[in-house]
Amino acid sequence: MARELHLNLFIHGRGHHEVAWRHPDSAQRAPTDLAHYRDLALAAEAAKLDSVFFADHVALGQDLGYAARGELEPLTLLGALAAVTQRIGLIATASTTYSEPYNLARQFASLDHLSGGRIGWNIVTSWAPAAAANFGQEHQAGIDQRYERAHEFVEVVSKLWDSWAKDAIRDDREAGVYAHADLIQRTEHRGKHFAVAGALNVPRSPQGRPVFVQAGASTDGRAFAARYAEAIFTAHLQKESAITFYSDIKTQARALGRRPDQIVILPGISAAIGSTEAEAQRVWEELNELAHPSVGLSRLSNRFGGHDFSHLKLDQVLSADDFPDPSQVEASRSRAQLITAYVARERPTLRRLLHSLAGARGHFTATGTPEQIADIIEDWFVSGAADGFNVMPPILPTQFTVFTEEVVPLLRKRGLFRSEYRDGTLRDRLGLDPVPSRFDSPTQEQRSA
Amino acid sequence: MARELHLNLFIHGRGHHEVAWRHPDSAQRAPTDLAHYRDLALAAEAAKLDSVFFADHVALGQDLGYAARGELEPLTLLGALAAVTQRIGLIATASTTYSEPYNLARQFASLDHLSGGRIGWNIVTSWAPAAAANFGQEHQAGIDQRYERAHEFVEVVSKLWDSWAKDAIRDDREAGVYAHADLIQRTEHRGKHFAVAGALNVPRSPQGRPVFVQAGASTDGRAFAARYAEAIFTAHLQKESAITFYSDIKTQARALGRRPDQIVILPGISAAIGSTEAEAQRVWEELNELAHPSVGLSRLSNRFGGHDFSHLKLDQVLSADDFPDPSQVEASRSRAQLITAYVARERPTLRRLLHSLAGARGHFTATGTPEQIADIIEDWFVSGAADGFNVMPPILPTQFTVFTEEVVPLLRKRGLFRSEYRDGTLRDRLGLDPVPSRFDSPTQEQRSA
Repeated sequence: MARELHLNLFIHGRGHHEVAWRHPDSAQRAPTDLAHYRDLALAAEAAKLDSVFFADHVALGQDLGYAARGELEPLTLLGALAAVTQRIGLIATASTTYSEPYNLARQFASLDHLSGGRIGWNIVTSWAPAAAANFGQEHQAGIDQRYERAHEFVEVVSKLWDSWAKDAIRDDREAGVYAHADLIQRTEHRGKHFAVAGALNVPRSPQGRPVFVQAGASTDGRAFAARYAEAIFTAHLQKESAITFYSDIKTQARALGRRPDQIVILPGISAAIGSTEAEAQRVWEELNELAHPSVGLSRLSNRFGGHDFSHLKLDQVLSADDFPDPSQVEASRSRAQLITAYVARERPTLRRLLHSLAGARGHFTATGTPEQIADIIEDWFVSGAADGFNVMPPILPTQFTVFTEEVVPLLRKRGLFRSEYRDGTLRDRLGLDPVPSRFDSPTQEQRSA
Repeated sequence: MARELHLNLFIHGRGHHEVAWRHPDSAQRAPTDLAHYRDLALAAEAAKLDSVFFADHVALGQDLGYAARGELEPLTLLGALAAVTQRIGLIATASTTYSEPYNLARQFASLDHLSGGRIGWNIVTSWAPAAAANFGQEHQAGIDQRYERAHEFVEVVSKLWDSWAKDAIRDDREAGVYAHADLIQRTEHRGKHFAVAGALNVPRSPQGRPVFVQAGASTDGRAFAARYAEAIFTAHLQKESAITFYSDIKTQARALGRRPDQIVILPGISAAIGSTEAEAQRVWEELNELAHPSVGLSRLSNRFGGHDFSHLKLDQVLSADDFPDPSQVEASRSRAQLITAYVARERPTLRRLLHSLAGARGHFTATGTPEQIADIIEDWFVSGAADGFNVMPPILPTQFTVFTEEVVPLLRKRGLFRSEYRDGTLRDRLGLDPVPSRFDSPTQEQRSA
């Protein structure tokens, strides 16, 4: 079978550009209105996308006067979307640092039941220091500690999701036997961070567990992704770093004994699309003109652990020397590294860097005609930079409408993207192997080993 | 305005009788199938009930072979039901012992947005010892400690829900002002159990916060309910204890400066309804014949902290001496007290006690014609035992269908129950005052005080 392109819609308020909320073309509804998300998910489903995705933070962001803050919590939102969609995958972020494994395992297992096997979990360790203060912690744990806990967290919840055999429930009314008690097993996990007896009180879900998605790109993040991730959202300001990342992850996965096709790598793309190049460029410029440089500077500072950039001038050409050593950043380390590498290579002015980051927070941005955007997608897909894309329209819903109406048909014409859904779960659609169960009978091979 | 009867449907798998899952009239769908819950919620909405409710436990129950265990997690399920219903209230249980305040506050605020103001939170401290072992605790906290934490928990989440003023969001595209930053305030809670900086990252929801529901009936539980609860689910085996409870709660609330009508008391009623008394009796007997006495005994033992009742004979008449002192029970103390009081008064055989508990786990059970059930409801309502009922059909959906088609019209004919929904939130429907906001401008009275 030919390689298949995967497309995920990343839904972020009224669009991914930081001032999308002000743009006259963006949604009029409040970002707390279910109808906004329902309509986007239904549009993505009509276009046969693989999935939609919601990011998450467990703290309120900054720049409250200016930025469109205050959104819905993703797991309850996924519950709602599971009920009003039929086929599209539904992916939500949840934190291994600020959740209890038993609670998280139950909610994802329930969502997988509610959706008939369409759920993915974007596993994050939560980099924002403000989050710690909402959970009784004086100081945020360092990146190493967060990942150490994340490894054990994934181990525990994986055991919990493996509590029930596929055929544990008999539901035999005549005999009065509801379940095979010996096909439901306790967890009995005792580790450094967690002690969880189990069993989970939700039966095995259609996919066994949610698809594991990951977006961390630091050294720790990549090692974690190579071990666990089945789909990766990744941010690149340029194709070159996407190729390096792609190759690094697949190599690391192979070294761990995993098949490289079992990790679907989806770089973000935030494209302003117009019927001409000039029109696309105009959309982007309208957005950039609405952006405040001071807000961009404060966000840049956050990415570098609060570093002060206020002495830099907007038209000044930057070099890597203008930035602190990103390997010392404890919060959003990988994003800081990508920004520094981009500056070293492109030598942008501060204004251009801020515009680039305002577009999609460090993800790849582009302007062009549908043909040009389809070219970029095809180019990255065939040249080892991507297995598909995390589609991040700068303005929602209008720029996503253009994407589905103009770009998706081109990708179909080129034989890259599906025209219809096949039956199956999100795992099946992503080409992922079934999740093994501890109750599976050993195969011939295993028996003779 | 005349007092209005309130009706809540308590949805519990295929029915509240412990063997409902085996009965030929109960739902054929799996208890993990959204369609089962959706159809019940829609039927309750068509009958203009106030709300539907889901209980919860954060551990898998016992008797796995026999009992229908393994359900959906209630908050994700409420998300799904919010999307497919329009008017009915949606109430879910969540634990103050095993949740983080910031996570719980976000999920309920989101649900209140998703549903347009229809959410209630049944506040529990989780009595089952097995729960502690799923959250890294060697031993379950005692009832006093659980309630101490619960008080602080409700204080913290109430502050979090009060982070945003009603009019904090300006959404002024022209001026580039999304929110009034000074109408979003941090929480800065520092207590014995929690330290939470805030602010919540979800804007104020339509009801301000979920309606506070409570079901604990121990001394600690009642004191908690009198302070916080706006609706109470309560279990009684007989009308007398319901009257005592009703009067006690309303008296305690008055002593705390609350208006008694701000607590809506809803005893459970599990009625087998037939077109004749004999037919209703037949349904009940069919269920009891399917029940296993050994399972009933093990459940009774759980209610009394693992006490051994195995020496008792099924046809033996019981007295209170056959039970341990319920005031020493650390788990489900109030239920143990109710059972002991019932035994002392009624002197049932063990068989009869087990049947009574199998029916609805200690809630009031009845058999009768629609007329007889309507009589009970009216009698309790007018004689100071209830403001309405927590309807717990022994078999779902069939016995609920009979309730909506046969009993509800009688309650309407008697002028007790609504024929149409009025506009408004769940709070409005229950006759509850609006939730005050720390941003409210002081009234004339407060200013001159």
